[in-house]
Amino acid sequence: MTRSGDSLPMPKRVRTAAALLIGNELLSGKIGDENLATLARALRARGVSLDRAVVVRDDVDVISREVRALSETHDWVFTSGGVGPTHDDVTIEGVARAFGAGVESSARMEKLLADHYNEKLTEEHLLMARCPIGCRLVATDRVPWPTVLMHNVWVLPGVPWIFAMKLAALEAEIAAETPFVTASARMRLEEPALKALLDRVVAEFPAVEVGSYPKWNDGDCKTKVTFDGRDEDAVRAARDAFTAGLPEGALLGVEG
Amino acid sequence: MTRSGDSLPMPKRVRTAAALLIGNELLSGKIGDENLATLARALRARGVSLDRAVVVRDDVDVISREVRALSETHDWVFTSGGVGPTHDDVTIEGVARAFGAGVESSARMEKLLADHYNEKLTEEHLLMARCPIGCRLVATDRVPWPTVLMHNVWVLPGVPWIFAMKLAALEAEIAAETPFVTASARMRLEEPALKALLDRVVAEFPAVEVGSYPKWNDGDCKTKVTFDGRDEDAVRAARDAFTAGLPEGALLGVEG
Repeated sequence: MTRSGDSLPMPKRVRTAAALLIGNELLSGKIGDENLATLARALRARGVSLDRAVVVRDDVDVISREVRALSETHDWVFTSGGVGPTHDDVTIEGVARAFGAGVESSARMEKLLADHYNEKLTEEHLLMARCPIGCRLVATDRVPWPTVLMHNVWVLPGVPWIFAMKLAALEAEIAAETPFVTASARMRLEEPALKALLDRVVAEFPAVEVGSYPKWNDGDCKTKVTFDGRDEDAVRAARDAFTAGLPEGALLGVEG
Repeated sequence: MTRSGDSLPMPKRVRTAAALLIGNELLSGKIGDENLATLARALRARGVSLDRAVVVRDDVDVISREVRALSETHDWVFTSGGVGPTHDDVTIEGVARAFGAGVESSARMEKLLADHYNEKLTEEHLLMARCPIGCRLVATDRVPWPTVLMHNVWVLPGVPWIFAMKLAALEAEIAAETPFVTASARMRLEEPALKALLDRVVAEFPAVEVGSYPKWNDGDCKTKVTFDGRDEDAVRAARDAFTAGLPEGALLGVEG
């Protein structure tokens, strides 16, 4: 990992991440995922590009295969879900197997559980102390319950507010580099009428990612165009070049 | 495809599906996906198991590779997003390439566009008539604008209400078999106290998928347990065996 203190003369490769969202409930439509957007925003603010997400069932073989594949092709992997004590919580086992490791009960986590439950502690509570052998346990002042980091894989819980809280606490572990910034413009025109101008701006600003989104049921706004990148000046310049090329009266407003 | 009219003596293999959610905006956290849950519920009602979802950027090579892999390993694939006329709409091209096919402009879709836009029709509008060569165009009474079906891959738009509308119209194309049903129970007890009972019910009802979800900030309810499967009697029996094994006063309610 290159830390933010090392300022190299060459542009650094943008770090990448992948998400593995685990849980039958996501694939049965019982609940809608909220963690992907939370993760995406946290990573972008630190200059990390979230490039891929995979949603899988509570299946230890599938989880193991995905963790291995994502770990090899991204700088970081974040898993969500499957970390409780019941039969359908198989993420720890899956992450361990991805690296050919076994699972052990962490003495440090056992002590935290014993201190919390005292005389009410049961064998089932202690299942929450299971970890892949060789992992690092990362605790912070804000979140003293440790988070498992196995090689480059962060193991996070699925409950959205706990996912968000743990992720915020972990941000210090991921060096902050130039964040991604975004700007946008809203138009009265539909996408086909904007295409030639869009193509021109896309060609002129290769470092800026330009997105075009049709709007429906959004009053006068028919299209929103977004401009994203890590070079803030280029992002603003791309947006300004785009809005300058619009016919009179087409622009409803700009943001960012 | 086995149609629902053919009732075979052997239990049929459960049909599987995968989703490919396409769009930089999903991986930047600008919007949260809503289509996965919509798709999951529609498929379960027809007895199809949604086993995997992948979220990727607007990258034609990545889309092409994913479509091919998902198409080979599932009965159906549903893509969402990337079907407009602008530079970031590369799904049609990606789906075509997945099958080694080219892209052509469909005369049938061109005519629909010409009839709709009349003298306002432009070259950019006609970009919405692009299709993979060899695809089938599926129109219904409710949604006359055709949907692309390339081999076993349905190409749907990303805008959630249009996705849901088109999906509903397509349901007739996917034979209805025994739907998945669900039942659930809510308890005052936390997961560790339920584990032994859960393990017993999981072992006793192999055809029922049992899920256990911790609840936070949900009043007295500390855990929700769900029972899913295509055998309605087994689903109810598993739930009843579970609730019968609970200590007195632990059960808050049942559903389904």
